[in-house]
Amino acid sequence: MPHCTTLLHAKNILTQDSERNLLEEASLAIHNGKIVAIGPRQELAPVWQAQEERDLGNVLVLPGLINAHTHAAMTLLRGYADDLPLLAWLEQKIFPREAQLTAEIVELFSLLGFAEMLATGTTACLDMYLFQKAVFAAAKRAGIRLSAGEGVFAFPSASCANWQEALAITEDLAQSTSAESRLEVMVSPHSVYTTSPELLTACLSLAQKRNLPLHLHLSESPQEVAQCQQSHGLSPIAYCAERGLLTQPAALAHVVAVSDDDLKCLTEANAVTVLHCPGSNMKLASGAARIPEMHSLGIPIALGTDGAASNNQLNMFLEMNRAALLHKLVAKNPEVLPAGTVFDMATLGGAKALQHHDLGSLEVGKWADLTALDLSAPNLLPCYAPISHLVYAATGHEVVLTMVEGEILYDHGTFTRFDYEALCQEIRQITDALQRKAL
Amino acid sequence: MPHCTTLLHAKNILTQDSERNLLEEASLAIHNGKIVAIGPRQELAPVWQAQEERDLGNVLVLPGLINAHTHAAMTLLRGYADDLPLLAWLEQKIFPREAQLTAEIVELFSLLGFAEMLATGTTACLDMYLFQKAVFAAAKRAGIRLSAGEGVFAFPSASCANWQEALAITEDLAQSTSAESRLEVMVSPHSVYTTSPELLTACLSLAQKRNLPLHLHLSESPQEVAQCQQSHGLSPIAYCAERGLLTQPAALAHVVAVSDDDLKCLTEANAVTVLHCPGSNMKLASGAARIPEMHSLGIPIALGTDGAASNNQLNMFLEMNRAALLHKLVAKNPEVLPAGTVFDMATLGGAKALQHHDLGSLEVGKWADLTALDLSAPNLLPCYAPISHLVYAATGHEVVLTMVEGEILYDHGTFTRFDYEALCQEIRQITDALQRKAL
Repeated sequence: MPHCTTLLHAKNILTQDSERNLLEEASLAIHNGKIVAIGPRQELAPVWQAQEERDLGNVLVLPGLINAHTHAAMTLLRGYADDLPLLAWLEQKIFPREAQLTAEIVELFSLLGFAEMLATGTTACLDMYLFQKAVFAAAKRAGIRLSAGEGVFAFPSASCANWQEALAITEDLAQSTSAESRLEVMVSPHSVYTTSPELLTACLSLAQKRNLPLHLHLSESPQEVAQCQQSHGLSPIAYCAERGLLTQPAALAHVVAVSDDDLKCLTEANAVTVLHCPGSNMKLASGAARIPEMHSLGIPIALGTDGAASNNQLNMFLEMNRAALLHKLVAKNPEVLPAGTVFDMATLGGAKALQHHDLGSLEVGKWADLTALDLSAPNLLPCYAPISHLVYAATGHEVVLTMVEGEILYDHGTFTRFDYEALCQEIRQITDALQRKAL
Repeated sequence: MPHCTTLLHAKNILTQDSERNLLEEASLAIHNGKIVAIGPRQELAPVWQAQEERDLGNVLVLPGLINAHTHAAMTLLRGYADDLPLLAWLEQKIFPREAQLTAEIVELFSLLGFAEMLATGTTACLDMYLFQKAVFAAAKRAGIRLSAGEGVFAFPSASCANWQEALAITEDLAQSTSAESRLEVMVSPHSVYTTSPELLTACLSLAQKRNLPLHLHLSESPQEVAQCQQSHGLSPIAYCAERGLLTQPAALAHVVAVSDDDLKCLTEANAVTVLHCPGSNMKLASGAARIPEMHSLGIPIALGTDGAASNNQLNMFLEMNRAALLHKLVAKNPEVLPAGTVFDMATLGGAKALQHHDLGSLEVGKWADLTALDLSAPNLLPCYAPISHLVYAATGHEVVLTMVEGEILYDHGTFTRFDYEALCQEIRQITDALQRKAL
């Protein structure tokens, strides 16, 4: 009789395998964090001997969602400034508050961001911010899967005097996390407009040397493209291609303002993924990315929430919904981006963005990163097609359980690895103190 | 010492009065369903003697949201057919399933819709569907505030052999509900394209005779406008104006495809409210209504979810979020429709749509229709500006309590007036039976 660490039973399991199999009255056996069996309960239950067996009841189990572009610590700025023009928002609100950041603040607000993600079914995220060691520390406290790197800028940040320091932190992190299966590092030049040619070359060299992917903001708005044309005579994408950045696996955030040539360039690039952030693009009025076209060209697409200053949530269910709705409107075609395509982006697309091919579906050999939704929530009744519900009917708050590498991290309202009440207290104290300083 | 039925205490109360006062450590006294006092807890608590006193703790109390356009019973069709072109969707999926409707089915699925609304902070809705007596019966079971009328069509429906019958039901309902403060009737011709000139005239006559407002779908898509131009030589709005319909108080759903002349016509109309349904307009690819322009012209605007077949939720928090985000993108301006404006639409705008001026804010003399959100939810932390959170950060599932006329209808996951578990059972049984019949 084969042994496993955990045996889960559920009314429905959505596998996201190549046939999108939906299993009813199903079970999933996990051993050492990986899926060792998945199938009908009546077949698995008599066979597998588990250390822990759990019947989740009337739930839908699905692969954990992957938030492929975020700045978790920006929960600090959730609702701090909205409805402003971009420059006033950045210069009068966001930047002054970010100047007050410390490693302690970044760790606490990252933990808050990870709490929100776990509670809404996200098991992995791709982050870029300042004080990134603190972000990794928060990820370890929460148990979430994290790919991230220190944001690299041509100017000093709250955490680094210069870009060399940011790259040194990135390299340190790559070393210190190398034994941690849940933590990965990406070299993270912030964007073309906030960096310099030599900085980008140094980023590429580090990425090549340590075999790390790149993560950057790219072509987020028409203004960015105009500025790049003026400075470099090229679009941001053409400029990155020219500098060799797109020969390295890369996760490209936003990619809103693109020409046909830019799209061609992306199809020819090596292992790039576009990180689509519809909520942020709408709130900041950046524009609608050409996602349906990119999808039909075969460009890999993942979804991200961006930071809580421009969303203002880190909730991938809402992001799936926005992606599906926005592009129907823009294309004037209700058939564009059907639910399955959007769900792929939030799971398998996210796995590609993370360059992590053991994620994104529930199949033997993959990590047991998953979440479970209560199917008795009023907004999930009745249920004809689970994938439709994930994209159009769920809000993320139907989540009753979230697990990474077979470890339960969120269970019916409770975080298993940290004291959420204490975190709330700390969050309130720090926020109050920062508000007093700002006055 | 003055007496009241209920005295509520809360960390924050957002009044939605003309100054948008936000009260901290506040109380609200309710007597016979109406607000008799609101203010600082330290002033009210020693003065008011209450039959029931309740400290809601760390919550934000706000006026109950008003869902100004819905078809609650269409929860039956939630996720039943998505991502299809409009005609195929209607003719191959929606209409055949609607042909199976009975009063019993409409009552149960309306109750499910009302459950979803109450659980997400909606205290009133404006509904239009078939078997409308069953919808009123469901509203009485749930306790929600309802304005509605039988949908009037030029052709037979599942509930009426002809439009005369639909108007007779409407008139009956107006009589039978006249003593019920939570129930109101509207004369509800479905739309221009599904009715006839004589039917519209009969609707107007009934509305005038019984002093009832009108509720209809209007200018939902460019296709509808083109068809009306062809049939009547006028846009749907001009056509309604010509037939005198806009002299009567009227709630106009969608109003997506409009000319400048149409907008002028709406500004000159007597007591019309536009019911904006951004989720449905996006999902069906109908287009983006000219909401910011209408708002600046002073045309009253309310928000609605539409039915669950085209949304697929009846959640006003998501609808506020979509309205705020969509119009920023369309206008290419992040300052468009700030949070306060959108929140007004979901509260005071909804009250106007219902022609019910004792709703939409928490002020002495108004009905105690309210909801309370748990401020310790991860996605509501920290909290600098509650109105921002309502529009950008909340999903509706932070709601812990919802009350209509001072009566608690939803309390920390429990519906007080009906057995939700039993409803779920019935919903599953009926859905299974209909699926079997359809095969």
